[in-house]
Amino acid sequence: MKILELRLANFRNHKKLILNLDYEIVLLTGANGAGKTNILEAVYALSTGKSIKAKYDRDMINYTARFTTAGADIENSSGKYLLEMQVIKEPDASNISSKKTKVNKVPKSLVSFSGIFNSVMFSPEDLNIITGSPSERRKYMDAILVQTDKNYKRNTSAYLKAVRQRNKILEKIAEENRGRDEIGYWTKKCLEHGTYIQEQREKLFDYFNKKLPETVEKLNGKDTAVEIKYLMNEISEERLKKHEEHEVHAKTTLVGPHRDDFCIFHNKHNLSEFGSRGEQRSVMLALKLCEINYIEQENDERPVLLLDDIFSELDENHRSSVFNILEQQQTIITSTEPPDFLSTKSNTHEIKVL
Amino acid sequence: MKILELRLANFRNHKKLILNLDYEIVLLTGANGAGKTNILEAVYALSTGKSIKAKYDRDMINYTARFTTAGADIENSSGKYLLEMQVIKEPDASNISSKKTKVNKVPKSLVSFSGIFNSVMFSPEDLNIITGSPSERRKYMDAILVQTDKNYKRNTSAYLKAVRQRNKILEKIAEENRGRDEIGYWTKKCLEHGTYIQEQREKLFDYFNKKLPETVEKLNGKDTAVEIKYLMNEISEERLKKHEEHEVHAKTTLVGPHRDDFCIFHNKHNLSEFGSRGEQRSVMLALKLCEINYIEQENDERPVLLLDDIFSELDENHRSSVFNILEQQQTIITSTEPPDFLSTKSNTHEIKVL
Repeated sequence: MKILELRLANFRNHKKLILNLDYEIVLLTGANGAGKTNILEAVYALSTGKSIKAKYDRDMINYTARFTTAGADIENSSGKYLLEMQVIKEPDASNISSKKTKVNKVPKSLVSFSGIFNSVMFSPEDLNIITGSPSERRKYMDAILVQTDKNYKRNTSAYLKAVRQRNKILEKIAEENRGRDEIGYWTKKCLEHGTYIQEQREKLFDYFNKKLPETVEKLNGKDTAVEIKYLMNEISEERLKKHEEHEVHAKTTLVGPHRDDFCIFHNKHNLSEFGSRGEQRSVMLALKLCEINYIEQENDERPVLLLDDIFSELDENHRSSVFNILEQQQTIITSTEPPDFLSTKSNTHEIKVL
Repeated sequence: MKILELRLANFRNHKKLILNLDYEIVLLTGANGAGKTNILEAVYALSTGKSIKAKYDRDMINYTARFTTAGADIENSSGKYLLEMQVIKEPDASNISSKKTKVNKVPKSLVSFSGIFNSVMFSPEDLNIITGSPSERRKYMDAILVQTDKNYKRNTSAYLKAVRQRNKILEKIAEENRGRDEIGYWTKKCLEHGTYIQEQREKLFDYFNKKLPETVEKLNGKDTAVEIKYLMNEISEERLKKHEEHEVHAKTTLVGPHRDDFCIFHNKHNLSEFGSRGEQRSVMLALKLCEINYIEQENDERPVLLLDDIFSELDENHRSSVFNILEQQQTIITSTEPPDFLSTKSNTHEIKVL
């Protein structure tokens, strides 16, 4: 898996940028605010169809422009592809925008677009996956699974739509005492797509649970009890029936993958509440390494690794763990100055972002 | 302002710890999870009466214990004090705990306790002040103002109580159409305390607005347009009257300092949404430097500076800015290993945390 050339127009601060990235290790250097992270954001968006940091797609568009385009020549085991994504502002002042995706110049749905090119991003904000809200953790699971399973994306879209419709009907039942005949259809839809989503998540967590403890141990050089627990809010006919009256009262669907979460235990205690920052960082790094391996296992090739400004955060041990896997896939690194230790890697190509 | 000796019992992972901190610069080193941050948390709690990171006070208590004590000998311009804080678990499984504070062995209210000893903490999580929710930014304003103004703490407690009572009555009006006669009393209370809070916050932001741009400029060595804007949800009779019907409908108080926020503009754009991580870090560092100076201006002495694991995050320029102010007050620094640049400071005392 490789990105060969990246072309941006009106993407964040980059009015026009063409970068040849066809190297094993690419180092992007430049001052604060030069737009290094924005380049990684564009590369990541070409693999998932989504920004990793923007709340709204339109935030990716340069202030002065009406639309942005990110395009790339990429290569995977089945050949070369030309990927293009365009985000267009709607003329009003709202946060609405539309998105077009093309593969080899042919318009494709987001489902067909995402997953052709795979990437894993690692940045200091990743600690929020551990310390943030459940919705951040769900976003994290989804970002992995859309890259390994075409049907996952399809099922999540259909599921979220079904939940929205079902909630409207629950509200109608609660407030006007009508609509009980309509709810069955959407409950069935929720069950069908929700079950699929939870099966895939379960598979991912089985993998994490097998691999995470040994990865943490290898990183820290000592035995640490680490357990990652998938907190599945299981969707089933029985549970939906059991909660139906509560759902009417709450006017919202209480059961299903949109309420899933996961929790990491570190020496028997919740890492999010009781782990030190250093412990959280080292588990997060281990989780990311497992993530790369999971995507490789599922897709039979390694995703491109995007390292955003992380070396300063890591101590000696963790730094060398990352250093050791740099050449196992194409890696793009951002940093204000070239890190010392990279000077020993002859296959590093530096690009100055101005 | 100085902390001379710190004594902890069952504080987080420290079952029993006595540390002589009577040096200009104290460097706390140790492995991940040794409890370096926990020591700073205890020092900070002795100045504000609150944990800087725990959601509940009882999270500070060691798992195995029923209560924790943090005590310190401190010195400020009016003499030496013995401060003690105790948090006691309630026997049930809830998150309730009680807190006792003493000054020179005499029980004192939290209001009299906090502010005798002042400290400013700087840690990587501070970026959340910029990127997090409004409640994090209100917590930040409050943490500064309780240290410079005794009445501020009193007013915030009274204000929050008044809002809670007022919300209950709003709910009663909405659901049972009664209680309109009771609401006037709590509205008056909200107005009285709310106005005081907003006056103090305004004063703080006047100071920030004067000092922040030049501090950022000095840090970055170039002219940057930075503006910090206090988004006051102004409490006044007129605005309360205007929103009364909305408040009944929403069953909650919509006007007042509990809905304040602030926003930082960087080159005319919202730093939180559009600033790069490097830009956010450098503004955050500048804001912290202003914070120290504000506390010094108000209290006529400099607070103790607590630097939690931050040097790895800063680039060369920012590091030297912090380095230059290290000796202007007592400074306590945590780090996994002694940072190189500190070796030139002869007045640094290293304590290994095991």
